[in-house]
Amino acid sequence: MKKNLLVAQSGGPTAAINATLAGVIGEAKAHEEIDRVIGACYGIQGVLEEKFIDLTELVDTEEKLEKLRVTPAAALGSCRFKLKDISEDDSQYRQIVEILHKHDIGYFIYIGGNDSMDTVAKLSKYCKDKGIDDIQVVGGPKTIDNDLMGIDHCPGFGSAAKYIAAVFAELEQEMCVYDTKSVIVVEMMGRHAGWLTAAAALADIPNADVPYLIYLEERPFSIERFIEDLKTKLDGSDVVMIAVSEGVHDEEGRFICESVSSAKGLDVFGHAQLSGTGKILENAIRDQIGCKVRSIELNLLQRCASHILSATDIEESGELGANAVRLAVAKQTGLMSSLRRVSNTPYRVAYEGVDIQQVANAEKKVPQEWINEDGNGVTQECIDYLLPLIQGEMSCHFRNGVPDYLILK
Amino acid sequence: MKKNLLVAQSGGPTAAINATLAGVIGEAKAHEEIDRVIGACYGIQGVLEEKFIDLTELVDTEEKLEKLRVTPAAALGSCRFKLKDISEDDSQYRQIVEILHKHDIGYFIYIGGNDSMDTVAKLSKYCKDKGIDDIQVVGGPKTIDNDLMGIDHCPGFGSAAKYIAAVFAELEQEMCVYDTKSVIVVEMMGRHAGWLTAAAALADIPNADVPYLIYLEERPFSIERFIEDLKTKLDGSDVVMIAVSEGVHDEEGRFICESVSSAKGLDVFGHAQLSGTGKILENAIRDQIGCKVRSIELNLLQRCASHILSATDIEESGELGANAVRLAVAKQTGLMSSLRRVSNTPYRVAYEGVDIQQVANAEKKVPQEWINEDGNGVTQECIDYLLPLIQGEMSCHFRNGVPDYLILK
Repeated sequence: MKKNLLVAQSGGPTAAINATLAGVIGEAKAHEEIDRVIGACYGIQGVLEEKFIDLTELVDTEEKLEKLRVTPAAALGSCRFKLKDISEDDSQYRQIVEILHKHDIGYFIYIGGNDSMDTVAKLSKYCKDKGIDDIQVVGGPKTIDNDLMGIDHCPGFGSAAKYIAAVFAELEQEMCVYDTKSVIVVEMMGRHAGWLTAAAALADIPNADVPYLIYLEERPFSIERFIEDLKTKLDGSDVVMIAVSEGVHDEEGRFICESVSSAKGLDVFGHAQLSGTGKILENAIRDQIGCKVRSIELNLLQRCASHILSATDIEESGELGANAVRLAVAKQTGLMSSLRRVSNTPYRVAYEGVDIQQVANAEKKVPQEWINEDGNGVTQECIDYLLPLIQGEMSCHFRNGVPDYLILK
Repeated sequence: MKKNLLVAQSGGPTAAINATLAGVIGEAKAHEEIDRVIGACYGIQGVLEEKFIDLTELVDTEEKLEKLRVTPAAALGSCRFKLKDISEDDSQYRQIVEILHKHDIGYFIYIGGNDSMDTVAKLSKYCKDKGIDDIQVVGGPKTIDNDLMGIDHCPGFGSAAKYIAAVFAELEQEMCVYDTKSVIVVEMMGRHAGWLTAAAALADIPNADVPYLIYLEERPFSIERFIEDLKTKLDGSDVVMIAVSEGVHDEEGRFICESVSSAKGLDVFGHAQLSGTGKILENAIRDQIGCKVRSIELNLLQRCASHILSATDIEESGELGANAVRLAVAKQTGLMSSLRRVSNTPYRVAYEGVDIQQVANAEKKVPQEWINEDGNGVTQECIDYLLPLIQGEMSCHFRNGVPDYLILK
């Protein structure tokens, strides 16, 4: 008996989350168990509010599917909405199951990051506990932070890493233009993992004569030590490039940026909303060294830069969406679609499903052994891990000189 | 008799200034009057210090020339160095002429913005006044600010404008992801002209349902009026995109950003170094409206984004370099290589030379009639002017997933 497939997106947008959506839509057509593909707008919140659109109808040509693949941010919309604890109140779960039954939905693919995988974990467990076996819930991974467990690397990360490497390469050219001592500090996103910041090291490869200082949040940060590091580098070079995670903190865990102390600076999951680390370092350099210095916060630009995508990332993101459909149809509920790195040279991956319980609410940090002894750079092993993920260039479509996206909602 | 050609770059880098350099190098080969192409590193300062490199040797293949075309920033290095007033002290001019004679240089192409055209004007006037007729000095225009007189639009501007339009298109997708009222403020460079900010309007075309508010420095700015504008737009839309020039100021000419009052915030030309306008508006929105708001300062990223270039800009930038060589060889000293828009539909330009005196130390602002009555957007005429300049996509070369540039110095 044919059932409909529901797909939704959640968490922070990425440049590749729609590639996963396109993978889901494309693969669904190949399965006779699936009738229509329905999209929920604004994540699980949209499911509860039955904000549904018919994706089989809206994305009915290869051309639209192709355009969707390279459209940034979440075409279905997203939410930051945490389901209640089942043991305290299971009404939301009952409601979701009712809605899914009402719309004849047998498969639910939820694409998102850590918090979204928590939703998949809770909902699939609820269904199992209640003996509801006609709804398969599968997670589709995504996060530019690259901090999901149970997967070699996260879709969306490769494109963000490629953007960051490109930006550093460009800024390095900028900085070398004047014949004076100058320093640039670039602040990357990443609350509790330094993967994006580590990607700056990829730009360091082609022009090895300009030194980089790279500070990940995985190592305690000290402004005094940082200034010493920089002074040493400035002894040997006019230009120094600095990459820093927004979440760097001292030995006691206090963030270098100040805003964390404000109660207003918390999102709905209780995460601190950080900003300003780069600015603080810029000011410290100006005060304590006095050379020319600028800081740049990459901000949202690093997660939506559809004009420079990693072809590897877009391909894998799509394949992870397709794999999620295959898992759901095979009644593998409670899994996250995942990939394993089978080999690094040549780079090859295999697609699989992993138990969502090992993914939800955990964070994968940059391993300590991939950070150099001084805590101001990454090792070759880290670069070897990162480099395959940014191979190949893709971009969004353009019309009349400006990006042309597929708009769904 | 063959003479050498000297070329140098000056002022703020752009993503297209090396396309002009490539145009100079490529065209020089076609002229038997020219022996070798010599590059001065770090602008006119490098000329005074005889920091010369042999470009005929360093850029000896079509492949290298092609790579140079799409390498961002100034491959020869740049300076911000103002020659002394001739009437007070002409020693620098004498020294430059001596150095040029010593190196058998008959042609000097200086690529730069307003201040660099001032250098061309002074040096060519000095040569004329002294009856030195074996040195032809020609200016090659460039500035992302698009504020040079005597030219329809400036090389480098088209690529920066395309980058800005792409960024706005991407951020618009980002902002529409959540089902909540949210505002983004993006601050563009441009000390005394709002051209770059106007380019945000190009992203407004494809998705006309998200309102844009665009504030150029050409109109006095009032935070009170701005908040009223925004409230009105938020009545009709969840998302509002705001573009603002760093240099917006009130009726009395006081910059909205605060840093201008500091004496330290002046560059060697006495220009105020501005920053923080976007942040100030972000805070005003948070305080006075209270909706979700973020600000982004595009900073250096807008002038070195070689991963998204306007093909039109790169082609024209090269042709302006070639045209500068043709002017120099024709002994048209004291001119700036320029282009005129012959027609808009279809878009066609013609290359010419303009008297440097009409260019130096003047600024071309966005015409008042191209700004809407409310002072918060641009007219169709402005868009018609801008749109041809961002047509066609090009990017730097990539190797192993990261940008691969031609490094000269």
